[in-house]
Amino acid sequence: MRIHEIHVTPVAFKDPPLLNASGVHEPWALRTVVEVVTDEGVTGLGETYGDLSHLDRVRAAARALTGLPVHAHHALHARVAAAIGADVFTDQHGLTGAGSHQKTVDAVFSPFEVACLDIRGKAAGLRVADLLGGPVRDAVPYSAYLFYKWAGHPGADEDRFGAALDPEGIVAQARLLIEEYGFTSIKLKGGVFAPERETEAVRALHDAFPGLPLRIDPNAAWTPATSARVGASLDGVLEYLEDPAPGIDGMAEVAAQVPMKLATNMCVVTHDHLPPAIARGAIGVLLLDHHYWGGLLRSAQVAALCDTFGLELSMHSNSHLGISLAAMTHLAAATPNLTHACDTHTPWQDGQDVVAPGALRFTGGAVPLPDRPGLGIELDRDALAAMHEQYRRITVRRRDDTAYMRRFDPEFQPKRAHW
Amino acid sequence: MRIHEIHVTPVAFKDPPLLNASGVHEPWALRTVVEVVTDEGVTGLGETYGDLSHLDRVRAAARALTGLPVHAHHALHARVAAAIGADVFTDQHGLTGAGSHQKTVDAVFSPFEVACLDIRGKAAGLRVADLLGGPVRDAVPYSAYLFYKWAGHPGADEDRFGAALDPEGIVAQARLLIEEYGFTSIKLKGGVFAPERETEAVRALHDAFPGLPLRIDPNAAWTPATSARVGASLDGVLEYLEDPAPGIDGMAEVAAQVPMKLATNMCVVTHDHLPPAIARGAIGVLLLDHHYWGGLLRSAQVAALCDTFGLELSMHSNSHLGISLAAMTHLAAATPNLTHACDTHTPWQDGQDVVAPGALRFTGGAVPLPDRPGLGIELDRDALAAMHEQYRRITVRRRDDTAYMRRFDPEFQPKRAHW
Ligand SMILES: [Mg+2]
Ligand SMILES: [Mg+2]
Repeated sequence: MRIHEIHVTPVAFKDPPLLNASGVHEPWALRTVVEVVTDEGVTGLGETYGDLSHLDRVRAAARALTGLPVHAHHALHARVAAAIGADVFTDQHGLTGAGSHQKTVDAVFSPFEVACLDIRGKAAGLRVADLLGGPVRDAVPYSAYLFYKWAGHPGADEDRFGAALDPEGIVAQARLLIEEYGFTSIKLKGGVFAPERETEAVRALHDAFPGLPLRIDPNAAWTPATSARVGASLDGVLEYLEDPAPGIDGMAEVAAQVPMKLATNMCVVTHDHLPPAIARGAIGVLLLDHHYWGGLLRSAQVAALCDTFGLELSMHSNSHLGISLAAMTHLAAATPNLTHACDTHTPWQDGQDVVAPGALRFTGGAVPLPDRPGLGIELDRDALAAMHEQYRRITVRRRDDTAYMRRFDPEFQPKRAHW
Repeated sequence: MRIHEIHVTPVAFKDPPLLNASGVHEPWALRTVVEVVTDEGVTGLGETYGDLSHLDRVRAAARALTGLPVHAHHALHARVAAAIGADVFTDQHGLTGAGSHQKTVDAVFSPFEVACLDIRGKAAGLRVADLLGGPVRDAVPYSAYLFYKWAGHPGADEDRFGAALDPEGIVAQARLLIEEYGFTSIKLKGGVFAPERETEAVRALHDAFPGLPLRIDPNAAWTPATSARVGASLDGVLEYLEDPAPGIDGMAEVAAQVPMKLATNMCVVTHDHLPPAIARGAIGVLLLDHHYWGGLLRSAQVAALCDTFGLELSMHSNSHLGISLAAMTHLAAATPNLTHACDTHTPWQDGQDVVAPGALRFTGGAVPLPDRPGLGIELDRDALAAMHEQYRRITVRRRDDTAYMRRFDPEFQPKRAHW
């Protein structure tokens, strides 16, 4: 079965003003939906970033892939690499680590690979998780992903989540997400306020939700010295500490001084980073993300590598739609050593989706593995058209949390090893 | 599609008196053929070692696997692990490194995994290589695997390969194998005579076949000091030097002193060995072997790990039949970073096989990837029955090159760091 045509559709959906070390989420989040159609008329779905330069690369790659068999994983990857040439993509928000050629290729390849697995599963009557070794769990637990946030975007109405700028606001947000989704672990996006203030919120969460695993992710806003101090002060409180300080060297310095494992989706985001990070003992948990680790099969290989080297696994998330949630769920379900709840931005999507309702749901904080073949989801073509129309109407063409923040705070500087 | 029944058949085939550091091959080589049959009547083939304790474990595992889906890779592995318990298998010949629980489980799992991939390929109309990411080469190059050998087993007729006990004999053997198979690289099994004598044979090969990549594998019969001296003397002559000295520490000591990469199928034979070997810089080439790395998918993951860490890949071989050759060929065809010719004992099998003729052939030293679904081979049931009858007739129940050698040389000691 061969690739006959590929449709690449950029979409935009509303995003709340979520704060982070780089600034604040803009009112619109961008994603790209990839539909691969075979010569036998089977369609597979993939989802990736919406930044224009990435979209252009995805389109160039799509043109290079027609005619190839859907199971020709290596050949498809080689075609993507050839289509991209020496190009390197670096995101503007700086929250997912350094760009590299390998990461650029893997990120462009990812949605096509997921779509081909969707097709292969449909053709064989198997779930994508079955193609990844079979599920080792029936449902994939996700964490409540808390953000400091404004009540609403400046000049717009307050959103239904309201403000969260202090421990009380964060605890209230956690209550809301846990009530609606049943999450049994909590992640706080930090790097917004001074570490003492964010630590206070972590302690408030610890008191409000005793026994629930907690994580904080300041996106490398702290120096190694601050990270070591904060880490020591949160002994017994954190499940793991995510990207406290920048770089493999910085993380290694912290890791040697804190009692908990360090997690990353910043200092190890492509294969080149694994050998030095492992040699330095910089991390204890890798936050896997199939969007930049080259799709599901390559992510499964990275997961196997982590098992060999005694690294634990969780999963990273950017703002995404249901195709990505389905892909993450299949991968996590089929990854034996993924033992921490995964991150997801799903609650902030607040019901907006290109996936038809019914296939994806949360129960007890976990997403049951869809039981139909492939990813087990269907495209809602009306929703896709509407979100694409939104994309066409707006002028945002790449995520830039810093530029948006500077509209309200012209002096704002991204926080990197700031505190 | 689920596993309905599994047939496990030990077989014996004639083996010439091939010499190595542990002794000499017995007149019979043992293998186990695994046939997995699904509820839909599709059959898949696997092949593994024939030692009785391993055979018993394979039989125990087989009983535990019926009812499971053929694609439930992780669940099948878990069932095998549970069936085996804490058992550890250590081979008697000592040529494939230390035993470990993980290696034991992976070795028992391997033939079932290969058979399930054979089934999945047949069911989907895909070659096993397609299930491993698709072929990146149409044919897999193998090396001429030379052995010091006697003219025939003591008390029996001379075999058609004749004696090879000096450089002339080794060069003549190389000529014969290259003439019959077209090999374009050469491996000499060493550890039989003093290194000077074996080095002389390597130089004779270098002179007789200029430009052909050469390897020597003394199976850790040398000390690190000897290895360093021999390695230095063969600068520019060897493609790589295989297992000159025992252990990760010994290999690391040698690696720091010789100009060529060191390869291994002894000091790194399971996941536990990878982190220390990589940390120490002990090896530059891993000799992959799906028989003990847990089948084809797990071997592909190890191959991906090697790519991440800059380790090159070749493939290890024990005496085997066509099912293993087919499996090795599919794996190698679908492994982009397997850039050295693979080892195979096929020539020593001298036409004996359980695989029906036609599917596997050598052309220019390479085996073209079979183009039918699954492994692309069929069982020759008459040959299987005859080889099983041979197994029943003989008393050999485990490979023991040392005990056999001692029948002729009672003082013989296996050579480990001997020279
Ligand atoms: Mg993070
Ligand atoms: Mg060897």
